[in-house]
Amino acid sequence: MAEKRYLFTPGPTPVPPEVLEAMSRPVIHHRSSDFRAIFERCLERLRDVYRTEGDVLLYTASGTGGMESALSNLTRPGDRVLVVSAGHFGERWAAMARTFGCEVDQLTYEWGESPAPDDLARRLSELGGAKVVFTTHSETSTGVVADVQALAATAKEAGALVVVDAVSSLGAVPLETDAWGLDSVISGSQKALMTPPGLATVSVSADAWATVQKGAASRYYFDWGQTKARQDAFDSAFTPAVSTVVGLDVALGLLLAEGLEQAFERHARLGRACRAGVKAMGLDLFSPDDDRSAVVTAINAPDGIDSGELVQTLRDRHGIVLAPGQGPLKGKIFRIGHIGYYDVFDITTALAGVELVLSELGADIERGVAITEALDAFEHTRV
Amino acid sequence: MAEKRYLFTPGPTPVPPEVLEAMSRPVIHHRSSDFRAIFERCLERLRDVYRTEGDVLLYTASGTGGMESALSNLTRPGDRVLVVSAGHFGERWAAMARTFGCEVDQLTYEWGESPAPDDLARRLSELGGAKVVFTTHSETSTGVVADVQALAATAKEAGALVVVDAVSSLGAVPLETDAWGLDSVISGSQKALMTPPGLATVSVSADAWATVQKGAASRYYFDWGQTKARQDAFDSAFTPAVSTVVGLDVALGLLLAEGLEQAFERHARLGRACRAGVKAMGLDLFSPDDDRSAVVTAINAPDGIDSGELVQTLRDRHGIVLAPGQGPLKGKIFRIGHIGYYDVFDITTALAGVELVLSELGADIERGVAITEALDAFEHTRV
Repeated sequence: MAEKRYLFTPGPTPVPPEVLEAMSRPVIHHRSSDFRAIFERCLERLRDVYRTEGDVLLYTASGTGGMESALSNLTRPGDRVLVVSAGHFGERWAAMARTFGCEVDQLTYEWGESPAPDDLARRLSELGGAKVVFTTHSETSTGVVADVQALAATAKEAGALVVVDAVSSLGAVPLETDAWGLDSVISGSQKALMTPPGLATVSVSADAWATVQKGAASRYYFDWGQTKARQDAFDSAFTPAVSTVVGLDVALGLLLAEGLEQAFERHARLGRACRAGVKAMGLDLFSPDDDRSAVVTAINAPDGIDSGELVQTLRDRHGIVLAPGQGPLKGKIFRIGHIGYYDVFDITTALAGVELVLSELGADIERGVAITEALDAFEHTRV
Repeated sequence: MAEKRYLFTPGPTPVPPEVLEAMSRPVIHHRSSDFRAIFERCLERLRDVYRTEGDVLLYTASGTGGMESALSNLTRPGDRVLVVSAGHFGERWAAMARTFGCEVDQLTYEWGESPAPDDLARRLSELGGAKVVFTTHSETSTGVVADVQALAATAKEAGALVVVDAVSSLGAVPLETDAWGLDSVISGSQKALMTPPGLATVSVSADAWATVQKGAASRYYFDWGQTKARQDAFDSAFTPAVSTVVGLDVALGLLLAEGLEQAFERHARLGRACRAGVKAMGLDLFSPDDDRSAVVTAINAPDGIDSGELVQTLRDRHGIVLAPGQGPLKGKIFRIGHIGYYDVFDITTALAGVELVLSELGADIERGVAITEALDAFEHTRV
């Protein structure tokens, strides 16, 4: 038979068949009443998922395009900004801010560490403030989910705008755009929103709107003002990825039907199950062993095993797609994503594959226990 | 029964079922070998369609995002550029160039006119040259397909780079990226490439690469150098719209299997058929009555009829989606797109709908002749 594929990366994530089916329907025109009704509902559902009464703008772009829109709308060359970084995606904020000519200060942690609000308060005080603080909610490269609520409170106290990369976290772990005072939250269709990649979502607070640089020479496609003006009429400035919007609308419907709180709880339980199974095998976790780590579990490869080879073998021999380590963690860790359209039997499949291949590669691991421990950890917390 | 829908706009265009089916398959990971093989083939096919040995970069964005990438990579604030504009999309180039701080000179024609190479030569001579000449191949708002070959030769002679918006033309009418010396040609997935919207394609010539501004503070997501470096390894800098790439690969395969020359010939015949039918009804063409007008046919609404009302009625009452007039042509013209996955019976359906609704609206038109004339015009030219 054709080899089955199991997509267990932290993005793209598996897409529900209902969403794939909706996306396979004939294309409709983006200025037709058929599409407007879907677009209006999709934007409303996005605001529900963001937990905001404010604007959520939709861009045909990767998540990084959404991040770029925050830079080009909120900053101008020479602005002092502070980037909190503890991994690959934190470093992307810094690289992007430098590219846009900002004076970038960086509060840098080792990959895998969790940013501390006290450090942020100290740095902001030393700097005499910053125009914008850029943060990462779920640092996909390490599995760490930062305490964005506390970081945001600290940054707001110092008078900075708070911009959050929530590409892999929105819909998987709690995030309160309005209640936490987040000025811009960027996400993407391809993680917990259970849709193929192709759409970036960007919330904009009233404070962020007040800061938007008029006439800055750095954006047209990504201009927030133009996007909002059209979206407010359920129209779009440029031809959007209509089929992906149709899919996203269905996916958001599924997410809201489950209930956001229930989805958060499910992701927390998936994280627990994954960590329990990994530990039962005798492997060491790289990501923190706490309930916040509900998006992706990062695991140290056992002594003598290259994590890249493990991932490659799992993919080539068994069709199971995990993520390798990035940057300084290349070869050292592997990552199991558990985001979106995902249940405990996805965890057990991932664990079974890891157990099998590690054993074939000669690693000294405990066999026959991971699955049961994972199921137990998941079941024991069933509400 | 549920009302059938007929998508006859100049974009998005109808998508073949093979492409929709490919896009409805489970999502694959963008860094997996499964995807790399598809990505490599898709990029190769794109070069075939562009008729270039150079680079074609793929962006997850609307076509306008691809246009933005040309501005941000080729210009810096203060650069003198010349925009040739004769409609909505020419004006978009000018607006975008102004946004990016260029010193913009505009060779402006009335909407519906065809830009003349002599005018361009004169203007460039008056200006003492320009860094970049921005042009529109198929001006979707008017149906005019410009003689880009001649315009490009003129611009090159004056030492300017030539950047072409070919969003609605690439794959429908002849375009020779290398042979015509085009420095950057921007297109999109949703027109003659027969795929849902969501991908922009951007060719970059050797001269364009030599001009790319290093370190300009205006791009990260749209940075050509970063994109090329990753694409050369069949990798991507940011998570691409994988499902849309999978669909585009299938669509390009269909287009190349038909043969580009055959596709150009089919589009020319579709244009002839459409014009013949329209004229038989007694309506006046707005777009030129020549074989270059093979992408979209623009038609003057008869006296006393608002073209917007005609389009709305066709859509609401019969599920037939045409395009209304834009800008100064609002209410005055309507447009029938004949791009991509399209045959003569799509033309006859569009004409039948127009005949029916115009007659219902009380217009003085000839009935019962349009379809036969259209079929005749199409058949008589069958190779």
